[in-house]
Amino acid sequence: RDPSEANEFSRTKLTYESRANLAKSSIAKRLFNLMATKQTNLCLAADLTKSDEILDIADKCGPYICLLKTHVDIVEDFSESFISNLQALATRHNFLIMEDRKFVDIGNTVSLQYSKGVYKISNWADLVTAHTLPGRSIVQGLKAALDGEAAVKERGVFLLAEMSSSGNLIDDKYKESSNKIATEGSNVDFVAGIVCQSANCFAFPGLVQLTPGIKIDESVDKLGQQYQSPEHAVKERGADIGVVGRGILQAGNVQQAAINYRDRLWAAYTDRIAK
Amino acid sequence: RDPSEANEFSRTKLTYESRANLAKSSIAKRLFNLMATKQTNLCLAADLTKSDEILDIADKCGPYICLLKTHVDIVEDFSESFISNLQALATRHNFLIMEDRKFVDIGNTVSLQYSKGVYKISNWADLVTAHTLPGRSIVQGLKAALDGEAAVKERGVFLLAEMSSSGNLIDDKYKESSNKIATEGSNVDFVAGIVCQSANCFAFPGLVQLTPGIKIDESVDKLGQQYQSPEHAVKERGADIGVVGRGILQAGNVQQAAINYRDRLWAAYTDRIAK
Repeated sequence: RDPSEANEFSRTKLTYESRANLAKSSIAKRLFNLMATKQTNLCLAADLTKSDEILDIADKCGPYICLLKTHVDIVEDFSESFISNLQALATRHNFLIMEDRKFVDIGNTVSLQYSKGVYKISNWADLVTAHTLPGRSIVQGLKAALDGEAAVKERGVFLLAEMSSSGNLIDDKYKESSNKIATEGSNVDFVAGIVCQSANCFAFPGLVQLTPGIKIDESVDKLGQQYQSPEHAVKERGADIGVVGRGILQAGNVQQAAINYRDRLWAAYTDRIAK
Repeated sequence: RDPSEANEFSRTKLTYESRANLAKSSIAKRLFNLMATKQTNLCLAADLTKSDEILDIADKCGPYICLLKTHVDIVEDFSESFISNLQALATRHNFLIMEDRKFVDIGNTVSLQYSKGVYKISNWADLVTAHTLPGRSIVQGLKAALDGEAAVKERGVFLLAEMSSSGNLIDDKYKESSNKIATEGSNVDFVAGIVCQSANCFAFPGLVQLTPGIKIDESVDKLGQQYQSPEHAVKERGADIGVVGRGILQAGNVQQAAINYRDRLWAAYTDRIAK
């Protein structure tokens, strides 16, 4: 076995710093390094419907997160100043912004959805999410939207290879195809990571595993979302970044909740690489 | 075999009027009747980025279509007046509006995406599209957004059981699961139809088959979209409604192009039921 193959089978044993060096996507490299330097693998899912509330929670939790995940299409008072304020907070607190758009249309349409419309997502989101369901054209379509001057911006996509909702239709074959789309072909430099729930979902250590559905008290919500603990996600499921939404948003003290999640996710990571 | 079973195996041989009577979704019933009365099974995909252009083409093509399909998130100058103008055109020319959002997130998120944000899709779109990838919770989540007074509105979803992009990851098992989500359980009254490419994708005649990717000169675009002719779509592939985008949008005379597509799609349907 050559060293690269050995690395592939020990992705979860490697440090974020060493994985930064293996990344093909420059934004993945930046994210790994940011996590290592800032010592946080917490992503906040800022699923709120008022821009002031999002900015407030981004300011309070910013120091403890590597990534802020938005659903910009649920924000009722969206404006360009909301975006510029959010970007200012990202710079001040040193986190990246991911728009969790879950692009899933044909190439021509996702290209427009990514760069046009009210939101102009490609202008401000460092990262976006997309489903692999449409095939390779999803990555191609997103990348095509950046042609021209925007192409110099550091951008990337996280591909969904699993979902956290109960009864979802993703099977092993689907995961394998997603893995191939993420790691083969000429557009792999645009793929920063994989959204998934398990360590065996992909092997390439240059990709970041983002795992949603993390909550200290594990449970199921009334619309089918399944939760797991920070330790279980990082140590058993291979999460590099844990996404916490309602566990922080609904806490009495959001800042303290963010610190708790940051501490537990980071401790789980240091345990994982120490073993 | 009882009559209902016989019907199931001859979905494509039934008239739209008779299928209206079999629909479990009240908006599907309305759509089937509209198609029969107006004698059109053409859906225009108004994939344009300026609201004036969309209103202009909706006005020109409105008399010849049963459905106008929007991607509201690519419209750069979206406003509430754009929506009210579009609704006025829908009333004047008697067509329904479908927002092709392709919802594909967990229940709680799609519920917010459907009803909140800048677009407030549930306020104005008669129909929306969604992927079955997240499982049954996708229908449940969308329906949950209509709780309260909005629930009285006639609304429905088209579930994607196939895609037209080359190399997409949908297989037979996925299609079968989509079919079950569309026809079993307590939320089937919210499912108006299926977006798919083939007649064997589902059997229940009370659902409408919407087939995108129709163009008179069949071809493939540079981002993996595959096209088929109106006749092939309706007669061989089971399409009840054919979706035409670039075939009309890029025509020299859009009105004449809409008439041509309407005529060819409708003739293919009358041929289909006559045999």
